[in-house]
Amino acid sequence: MRRLRDMLRAAVQGGSYPDGQLPSEAELMASHQASRATVRQALALLRAEGLIERTQGVGTHVVLNTVATPLPEAHGVIKPSRESLWNQRMRPRELDRSVVPAPHTVAERLGVAPGTPCLRLEYVALHHEEPVAVATNYVLFPEAGRLRDTPFVSDWYRLLDDAGVRLSESEFVFDCELADAPLASVLGIREGAPLISMEQLIYDPAGRPFDLAFIHTRGERFRFVSRGTKETR
Amino acid sequence: MRRLRDMLRAAVQGGSYPDGQLPSEAELMASHQASRATVRQALALLRAEGLIERTQGVGTHVVLNTVATPLPEAHGVIKPSRESLWNQRMRPRELDRSVVPAPHTVAERLGVAPGTPCLRLEYVALHHEEPVAVATNYVLFPEAGRLRDTPFVSDWYRLLDDAGVRLSESEFVFDCELADAPLASVLGIREGAPLISMEQLIYDPAGRPFDLAFIHTRGERFRFVSRGTKETR
Repeated sequence: MRRLRDMLRAAVQGGSYPDGQLPSEAELMASHQASRATVRQALALLRAEGLIERTQGVGTHVVLNTVATPLPEAHGVIKPSRESLWNQRMRPRELDRSVVPAPHTVAERLGVAPGTPCLRLEYVALHHEEPVAVATNYVLFPEAGRLRDTPFVSDWYRLLDDAGVRLSESEFVFDCELADAPLASVLGIREGAPLISMEQLIYDPAGRPFDLAFIHTRGERFRFVSRGTKETR
Repeated sequence: MRRLRDMLRAAVQGGSYPDGQLPSEAELMASHQASRATVRQALALLRAEGLIERTQGVGTHVVLNTVATPLPEAHGVIKPSRESLWNQRMRPRELDRSVVPAPHTVAERLGVAPGTPCLRLEYVALHHEEPVAVATNYVLFPEAGRLRDTPFVSDWYRLLDDAGVRLSESEFVFDCELADAPLASVLGIREGAPLISMEQLIYDPAGRPFDLAFIHTRGERFRFVSRGTKETR
């Protein structure tokens, strides 16, 4: 069952069904040498994840293709490809933009004293008007001063660019979590859905961290692609 | 509430409480300017995630520090640091090692015909005898022939190395998912817990993919660290 789920999940998310129509239960049973019960369980799981829909008499369809994003684009350190989400395809819905004293954990990460003023900018990232992530950024001055009055039109890196703020490096620490009620409500998903949780630190050209973000991303909408290449000795 | 949860989660996972003891509810209320109800909700969520435990009269403790792994180590493309999980600190529990015809999705990813023989090697990765991940690898021949009889003593890259199999690159596509009953049972967690789900492709020195893995990782045990550096123009 675990293996069948792996296969179907990979096929659905990887775009193996270009017209969005999955094979019938009978076809899946034959091609995976699985029982009807196993096939149904695996499909039920993908449905619970929001990846497929099943309609009596019509069949099983992919709800919508997951967007695969190269990690360096999400880091904001390379020019995004033309089709990329990071190429002006997102729109923010701002929840908060205000100057606040840095909370203890934020101050610790940014290497400043707790209470140091910073700009808190919180927003929902929308793609095709659908929420895909929610982020809370804490930005130190002087960068905060430049960001404070800059219109936020697309994604975070566009905002930094529009404000004339340069970055040299960005770091993600990521794991996964369950959506609690406030996250579920702001992302338009059900409570208990799985999310990718990221802490991001962004560094200025001198290597000083000036921006800390807590980001919650809908896993069934976003997949990240990471590549590691071995250095030849 | 969302913000308080972000802060506490970051502090707990980032090792901000070296002795593992969290501040009291009253201290958290004061330092975060939050109501008792908000503090309790945030702590309840961290408890549900398996990150903290609360004992009447004793207080709140970090269950165990999450291990942060640099992504290049998880890719198997750099020498792991001394303290790394990938430095002989894991042990596998093998579930299956057999030659099978490549399922359709596997064949598609590896660029071979469906049904091509491959070695399926499925195992649970243990750290301190605790399951942290479960992986199913599909390896093409000739590499499969070298892996088939090589003892699996620590992690996947050690196995490749012991078998004399070289890699040039590895790619992860990752998102998140909920543990279903079989995954929960094999990982010793509750059904519905959040997991990081990864598809990994490993390439030989000539750039041919020879290994596809489906990996399910406990997010509350593993955090991945990814760094992106801007190229100076």
